[in-house]
Amino acid sequence: MGRWEPDAGGRLARAALELYIERGFDQTTALDIAERAGVTERTFFRYFADKREVLFDGSPALLKAVVDSIAAAPESSGPLDVMGQAMQSGTSLLEERRDHARQRAVAIAANPSLQERELLKMSALGAASAEALRARGVTSPAAELAADAGVAVFARGFENWIAQGETRTLAECIGDAMTELRRLTA
Amino acid sequence: MGRWEPDAGGRLARAALELYIERGFDQTTALDIAERAGVTERTFFRYFADKREVLFDGSPALLKAVVDSIAAAPESSGPLDVMGQAMQSGTSLLEERRDHARQRAVAIAANPSLQERELLKMSALGAASAEALRARGVTSPAAELAADAGVAVFARGFENWIAQGETRTLAECIGDAMTELRRLTA
Repeated sequence: MGRWEPDAGGRLARAALELYIERGFDQTTALDIAERAGVTERTFFRYFADKREVLFDGSPALLKAVVDSIAAAPESSGPLDVMGQAMQSGTSLLEERRDHARQRAVAIAANPSLQERELLKMSALGAASAEALRARGVTSPAAELAADAGVAVFARGFENWIAQGETRTLAECIGDAMTELRRLTA
Repeated sequence: MGRWEPDAGGRLARAALELYIERGFDQTTALDIAERAGVTERTFFRYFADKREVLFDGSPALLKAVVDSIAAAPESSGPLDVMGQAMQSGTSLLEERRDHARQRAVAIAANPSLQERELLKMSALGAASAEALRARGVTSPAAELAADAGVAVFARGFENWIAQGETRTLAECIGDAMTELRRLTA
């Protein structure tokens, strides 16, 4: 495998997901993943701190896209508008990978420790978003609440996007979830 | 210790928190906790599945209070009103224990695996709330978004409540966080 994906990090992430689905997370070692990806175990640990982290290789790029978008938003935008825009800005990294996202969700749902890691990533995204909002002058607790609401909208939009038969883009699913949240709080 | 708290579960929870703050979570074993609480290690594992779970002994009662409140809410109430009320309904279990909650927050903040466990508990509270809303006839994704927003409001209110010098009750902090969320989305 892997000619179309020459980077070792990408090959490892793909191999890990395959193995987690084939054998289960607990039955897969870092060495198994390295072998499937055609690299050494040492190379695995150069790329990833542990066996869980390998499913979250996209997290830093998503977090950066979100934080950059918050910083670049027009001064006149309210905190929740800024968050809605920021959450949609990270989607371009994901739109082409819906099938991958579906398989990944299956692997995560099957293992509580992977669920915990995913929640920690979402929590980190919320904390970084709140910090970026405060840097724009949004006060507490508005900054933290807008950030949490934005992350909840992202998570809900993502879940809808990977549902079987869903045809909307991720950006559309997130936009629709934000509209629904506004309707709820009206 | 423990005369004022004759139940082994409560003694274990208290002993664990003391030890996590004194020595750190990683440096504390289940046996250490059991000895401090004056029971056997076997008794520890009759009460708690692992060393992390011992800090979350109040979670089932909170979840039950929230779900019961959602089920009992007036038919005319909107999903977010129902959630706001439900989140405040669980606070009576906590109001008298602000100092305990502060120490617990310090212990959790010091350890990523405790943070992950806390996030999993909050996620479970959101999932149970969404299910209780759907049982009232609230459709998806409104049920899930209202549940997530309610949990975010609870988490923010809780964080404000344990801040040094805060004098509002937990119920007031949660009510104020909900008001702030509504203002943000207006």
